[in-house]
Amino acid sequence: MSDNRKPVFLVIGAGAGIGGSAGKRFASSGYHAVLARRSDEAGLARMVADIEAAGGSASGTLMNAAEDGSIEELVARTEAEVGPIRAALYNLGAQIGNRALTDTPHRIFELGWRLGTYGVFRLAHALFPLMVERAAGGGQHGTLLVTSATAAMRGNAGQHSHAAAMGGRRMLCQTLYAEYAPKGVHVAHVVVDGAVDAPDTLGKLLGDKYAAFKSKKGAEGIIDPAVLAETYWHLAHQPRNCWSHEIDVRPWRDVAWWNDNPDPQIDSNGQGVRGA
Amino acid sequence: MSDNRKPVFLVIGAGAGIGGSAGKRFASSGYHAVLARRSDEAGLARMVADIEAAGGSASGTLMNAAEDGSIEELVARTEAEVGPIRAALYNLGAQIGNRALTDTPHRIFELGWRLGTYGVFRLAHALFPLMVERAAGGGQHGTLLVTSATAAMRGNAGQHSHAAAMGGRRMLCQTLYAEYAPKGVHVAHVVVDGAVDAPDTLGKLLGDKYAAFKSKKGAEGIIDPAVLAETYWHLAHQPRNCWSHEIDVRPWRDVAWWNDNPDPQIDSNGQGVRGA
Amino acid sequence: MSDNRKPVFLVIGAGAGIGGSAGKRFASSGYHAVLARRSDEAGLARMVADIEAAGGSASGTLMNAAEDGSIEELVARTEAEVGPIRAALYNLGAQIGNRALTDTPHRIFELGWRLGTYGVFRLAHALFPLMVERAAGGGQHGTLLVTSATAAMRGNAGQHSHAAAMGGRRMLCQTLYAEYAPKGVHVAHVVVDGAVDAPDTLGKLLGDKYAAFKSKKGAEGIIDPAVLAETYWHLAHQPRNCWSHEIDVRPWRDVAWWNDNPDPQIDSNGQGVRGA
Amino acid sequence: MSDNRKPVFLVIGAGAGIGGSAGKRFASSGYHAVLARRSDEAGLARMVADIEAAGGSASGTLMNAAEDGSIEELVARTEAEVGPIRAALYNLGAQIGNRALTDTPHRIFELGWRLGTYGVFRLAHALFPLMVERAAGGGQHGTLLVTSATAAMRGNAGQHSHAAAMGGRRMLCQTLYAEYAPKGVHVAHVVVDGAVDAPDTLGKLLGDKYAAFKSKKGAEGIIDPAVLAETYWHLAHQPRNCWSHEIDVRPWRDVAWWNDNPDPQIDSNGQGVRGA
Repeated sequence: MSDNRKPVFLVIGAGAGIGGSAGKRFASSGYHAVLARRSDEAGLARMVADIEAAGGSASGTLMNAAEDGSIEELVARTEAEVGPIRAALYNLGAQIGNRALTDTPHRIFELGWRLGTYGVFRLAHALFPLMVERAAGGGQHGTLLVTSATAAMRGNAGQHSHAAAMGGRRMLCQTLYAEYAPKGVHVAHVVVDGAVDAPDTLGKLLGDKYAAFKSKKGAEGIIDPAVLAETYWHLAHQPRNCWSHEIDVRPWRDVAWWNDNPDPQIDSNGQGVRGA
Repeated sequence: MSDNRKPVFLVIGAGAGIGGSAGKRFASSGYHAVLARRSDEAGLARMVADIEAAGGSASGTLMNAAEDGSIEELVARTEAEVGPIRAALYNLGAQIGNRALTDTPHRIFELGWRLGTYGVFRLAHALFPLMVERAAGGGQHGTLLVTSATAAMRGNAGQHSHAAAMGGRRMLCQTLYAEYAPKGVHVAHVVVDGAVDAPDTLGKLLGDKYAAFKSKKGAEGIIDPAVLAETYWHLAHQPRNCWSHEIDVRPWRDVAWWNDNPDPQIDSNGQGVRGA
Repeated sequence: MSDNRKPVFLVIGAGAGIGGSAGKRFASSGYHAVLARRSDEAGLARMVADIEAAGGSASGTLMNAAEDGSIEELVARTEAEVGPIRAALYNLGAQIGNRALTDTPHRIFELGWRLGTYGVFRLAHALFPLMVERAAGGGQHGTLLVTSATAAMRGNAGQHSHAAAMGGRRMLCQTLYAEYAPKGVHVAHVVVDGAVDAPDTLGKLLGDKYAAFKSKKGAEGIIDPAVLAETYWHLAHQPRNCWSHEIDVRPWRDVAWWNDNPDPQIDSNGQGVRGA
Repeated sequence: MSDNRKPVFLVIGAGAGIGGSAGKRFASSGYHAVLARRSDEAGLARMVADIEAAGGSASGTLMNAAEDGSIEELVARTEAEVGPIRAALYNLGAQIGNRALTDTPHRIFELGWRLGTYGVFRLAHALFPLMVERAAGGGQHGTLLVTSATAAMRGNAGQHSHAAAMGGRRMLCQTLYAEYAPKGVHVAHVVVDGAVDAPDTLGKLLGDKYAAFKSKKGAEGIIDPAVLAETYWHLAHQPRNCWSHEIDVRPWRDVAWWNDNPDPQIDSNGQGVRGA
């Protein structure tokens, strides 16, 4: 049976930043975007309306990804009612700001894992067998984009919950890629190593300091999620002979995670200075 | 008040491999070893008896680390009844062998996290404030040794549960080190990148293939846990001016995790061959 | 003075694989491609003719990059006679196949460094100040794409010369990015972790085994340099608020460098199997 | 023929910091230390005298490691006149402080490579075949300890020469380990990620700010090279079944290279803050 429906792009974590922008980008080039998020039904409706006003196709749903069965049900319903999921974006984070260990409650640490690691496992469990079946049948390969963070690469003080969740996520993305790439599912782990201009998250986190923060960052000083969405689009459409698994992004003036913050004094902390 | 009791070395995961050997090593040099494991009361009693026969001091306890409150209770009881914990070893793994994603049940994945990641968080939460207080009071610094695995560094196909748990563990060890090293707690993450001669785990996993496996590995072909225990001892006693956070170990003939398995054909998979 | 000339894309190492394909890609979208390679004047002329036949603009030059002053002269001449270099690709490798240490002559090891590491330093030294000046003057930012290899990430047996050169190259790309990104020069390090369909290099290396190699790899089993060129194009045109520094690519069925080759036996080498 | 002479520990870069301290440590436990350095004959003589006064055995030689043939001659002479080299330490650095790219002359960059990368290659070329022969004949395995630096792991602005040299060194150490570990040569790469209390190097670099620097660092705030020498000793004597290839060291209060410098403001640079 041929399937003339649009390919589906499923976004889990479709807020007004990366998730929504990626939805718009894919919808602008022929996908139907299924946008799932936990709250703000009005915001979600606006996002769908914007996409439709621009000539695209989208639908939205509220969902608590931390709840057992929620992601599984979303995948099943989307496949049954909308169409085959060609690409998905897992865009849920677990950033709670910096907290000392003793200020990090056990249930917060567990919730970080549920959203940061376990949700990716559950999505892959539900979705990848379907993608493999389609790829094996001569269809398009599937793609899972995973928005990740600096904390997947190194653990800073205060990031106990976030880094543990993201470190688990990163290793899981590697095992998923190792098992599924040869079966036609492309997993890409995107290390977002800088602030994203996202009113839903960064805006809420910083509150009335948000404007000052943006101003301090200067021109092109914060990641524009619409720009990042172009990189997501590129990754999702790399032909099979040339797939990327991991990529980092940050604004041009930001210090990359592996570098020190600039220091006017030579060797102020003696890094690299040694014997003989 | 001075405290003339022996310093305590707490082992969580005191099987007949790394955990037990480390207990013996520390007990042979003045520590009282508190050995905790999930099962095999007779084996545990033998281990304590062996240490005592060699002139050392030890005690044992059965405990299910996956159970809420268990680690916390062990730390509190040890501090109250035995003495201040100077060093601890978290030696619980979550290796379940290679399993395809669809053969990895959700509850197994969660258990992997409970033992592999969450247990380290719980131990640090219960223990580090006590260690900080002692270090700040002019006492010895505290040490947490964490036995880790190759899966903390890269995710192979089939290792979904194990790699996610170990990846979370590794990032958590980094956040713990970042917050607590300047307060006098030394966290060391030991990447065990090879088979350990441990009848409780490797022996059970391989069953009657264990002897053939050891024989195939040849002389000094498997890690002797008593030898690894010397490295644990060294790490636990590095003075504050020269602490290590991460170290790898493997037998001399093993291929390190970052290398390919040796390949007789040049460029058989074309690795590294590229343009002009 | 406004400059109505086309922006220049400079390729050092413009063979029939990655370098030539990138040249074609950039020329097809408005760049003038300056193609530099060591030998094969006829091949170079054909490449320029192909680009021009497709409506693009290009010029070619033979050059020995290992020779002092050669890269510097090329940059100066291009800027003076062709136009401002908006983007450059350093595409010279130093792969000599697998050789035991004692079969790796000292002069080969040094040549590896000259082509693999020092040439990047020389190019940046000559080019980046010009790019900074233009960016500071309100012009476009500059881009340096560097084709790299698996050997930049880990050192396999037999890769002494190549890995040392690529390891130096990778760290140098990081220092260049750290100093120059905030000044408007984008350095991107592309880890080509798989074979590229390049008759000039892989074809020559494998000789009459080339056809069999390609056949064994199967459909989309080798990187198509024209496909990789799309990723280069994407990187070179990321807006300043969202720059990537490092990305890996390989064909879908290839094992990523950080993974083991697949192994039918569970834990055949005991990786990850450990105590208690 | 049995060989009753002491095993030899060869130090290339035997200044008053790490190199000299390692020499003393090994000489105190039965090795004859051969100490090579570029200058300061009087300081070298004092070092030998100190070792002998403590009951050890040592000899010293001046040598310019950057000169072709120098390392090779030293190895040959030592083996012929002193005894078989059981362990060696390559302790030459190439740190020149922070310099902008345009302030980094080409000859300095090349010298960095000669001392930082090429010297390790030359030493292994000259020494490893001898070590392999002895190990194959049933003798002790050989060890090469390589003092490395943070710049081997990441490239900071200003570290162009140093990072390129150390990055090449690190990958070379991996290729050497991959080829030679199964033949009985243990290569260990020690990432010295903090300042070392070494008057010859750090003292000269900081000049009259040295005392203030040490004072600012506080108690146990700088690596004591005699303490680091204990870790070198431990690595050099790990039995074959449990070898480490890479280890990091730093003082307890130093920020590890992978972490940010502590920041009082939450998310001051927006690291890790992201969408949805």
